[in-house]
Amino acid sequence: MLKKRGRSTIVFDQGPVILSAASVAGQKEGEGPLGSGIDFISEDSFFGQKTWEAAESEMQKKAVKLAMNRIGAHSQDIDYLFAGDLLSQLMASSFGLMDLQIPMFGLYGACSTMGEALSLGAMAIDGGFAKRAMAVTSSHYASAEKEFRFPLNYGNQRPLSATWTVTGSAAVILGKPEKTAGRTVCIQAVTTGCITDFGVKDSMNMGACMAPAAADTLSRHFKDLNVMPDDYDWIFTGDLGMVGQKILIDLMKKEGYDLSGKHRDCGIEIYDAQTQDTHAGGSGCGCSALTLAAYILPMMLKGEWNRVLFMPTGALLSTTSFHEGKTVPGTAHAVVLTAGAA
Amino acid sequence: MLKKRGRSTIVFDQGPVILSAASVAGQKEGEGPLGSGIDFISEDSFFGQKTWEAAESEMQKKAVKLAMNRIGAHSQDIDYLFAGDLLSQLMASSFGLMDLQIPMFGLYGACSTMGEALSLGAMAIDGGFAKRAMAVTSSHYASAEKEFRFPLNYGNQRPLSATWTVTGSAAVILGKPEKTAGRTVCIQAVTTGCITDFGVKDSMNMGACMAPAAADTLSRHFKDLNVMPDDYDWIFTGDLGMVGQKILIDLMKKEGYDLSGKHRDCGIEIYDAQTQDTHAGGSGCGCSALTLAAYILPMMLKGEWNRVLFMPTGALLSTTSFHEGKTVPGTAHAVVLTAGAA
Repeated sequence: MLKKRGRSTIVFDQGPVILSAASVAGQKEGEGPLGSGIDFISEDSFFGQKTWEAAESEMQKKAVKLAMNRIGAHSQDIDYLFAGDLLSQLMASSFGLMDLQIPMFGLYGACSTMGEALSLGAMAIDGGFAKRAMAVTSSHYASAEKEFRFPLNYGNQRPLSATWTVTGSAAVILGKPEKTAGRTVCIQAVTTGCITDFGVKDSMNMGACMAPAAADTLSRHFKDLNVMPDDYDWIFTGDLGMVGQKILIDLMKKEGYDLSGKHRDCGIEIYDAQTQDTHAGGSGCGCSALTLAAYILPMMLKGEWNRVLFMPTGALLSTTSFHEGKTVPGTAHAVVLTAGAA
Repeated sequence: MLKKRGRSTIVFDQGPVILSAASVAGQKEGEGPLGSGIDFISEDSFFGQKTWEAAESEMQKKAVKLAMNRIGAHSQDIDYLFAGDLLSQLMASSFGLMDLQIPMFGLYGACSTMGEALSLGAMAIDGGFAKRAMAVTSSHYASAEKEFRFPLNYGNQRPLSATWTVTGSAAVILGKPEKTAGRTVCIQAVTTGCITDFGVKDSMNMGACMAPAAADTLSRHFKDLNVMPDDYDWIFTGDLGMVGQKILIDLMKKEGYDLSGKHRDCGIEIYDAQTQDTHAGGSGCGCSALTLAAYILPMMLKGEWNRVLFMPTGALLSTTSFHEGKTVPGTAHAVVLTAGAA
């Protein structure tokens, strides 16, 4: 029996359950609106390491260990890692996770990677391939600026449309549904993004690059499952920021969907734009991951929300393609989270 | 019922079938020992494009279309793409595959990516998430040298331990087992690699970086399934080349496994080292992909071989990690291919 609905959506027989989640972040994120939900905040942006890249690896390590400790799990209890980051050749993940000796699938979906990792992790559980699978992603402001724009030492100015790459990592452990006391959050369905390109070329305006991809995945999701925005407590996009949010709402209106009062964006939630000078908002693989682990899941477990569409978005930008005059295509992967008694 | 065996291996209920495969390559690969099996060979190393990166995207496009044409499939008949390449942020795949509008999971496993893509594609089919899934990878000699070492124009010399990045792409379409006339090849099991690091730092000796990962995955595979090298007609590693092959054979001997007469390497098969000046052999995401589509699958379909272990290997190298004095860790993903009447 095919579990596929429409072109792009899978509905799981028994939604894989989120057994544990943990988050690690830098000081700026700790001082932001989600700070109280973050498990470990480091004042040292190097996280005790010598390079920004090693700092990012260290965040992944810490997030993974915290998530495992929370349920008393060890490396050998995790069947698969689904992991990725923004850096070339997934440097942060490769070096951060190698000591765990867990079979690993390396993923790249830019800032959408947590959506991709949760989708594949849920498929691994639901398909009977794993008892427990872990999704982990990260980003670091300094390593990302070096990778994509200018090393920080250059002191270049940032336009208001620019987003601020989140320094953070989160790890989420998925498992089979079990009878447990209390509420659990499970993944009921996933909608996988197609690469979408509206011809935007501005690497300082990632929101505009990603909004069309978010609109495409969201429209597909609504059609595949025959649902409407009102069927969700909230629809969280990854990191469109303030510029991208407006574009998404406009594009969805043209498709006949009214997102007003239903849409929030991880990039907008994670910083206080008034006081933290983050311009259009936060971004990076760590942005939606952190918002999920530090805010969305706790709110669902507390009983505040029952049904959330979590849709990280990614701008498929590389410095080479940018310098060769190419556009910045986007993608977005949607994950339906439902909370209830197990 | 968990389909996992041991730490790292999945045995599929009904092995997903390889419905179609196609390969595209450059002139050098066309002149090599596997040339007659390659579907499309371009004398123009730019494949009609203006940049090496766009050339690589063009190869992916062509390989995908050839694979779909072979079974009369269109984009909408493919549920998911599992795709990747060597370039930063998967540039070749993003730009090469966006027009298809197929839900896509971007993967990074360096030269092991075809193994990773086939593993996840097979899981998607076997788990009931897809009717048809496509695995596609590519590499291009010129884009890879620019990304990882020196632009070609510098004319730098290459040590004998260096491998030659294959200019090529292959696409493989997986589907559910069906009654068909004639032989088919199916994926019976997959063993997923852990990141393995023996401390090698030489980016000009990728074989030595990857051999420990190949040995690790291979040992796990043998133990998980309680099989021996003699249970396979051939064990094909990805692109260890001549240097890496020796190390693998030595490491496996220490583990108690004799690979003599059973091991071949895609990097050694793809070029004629005597006449093509490729030093230690071929490498790149295109190397094992091309060898699979142009040589291994045809030999299995012809009835020459019945059981092959296909194990692409990847060196998780980035210029940033290299310049920061880091090691080059490796990974390897094994795929059990079996041929027989459907």
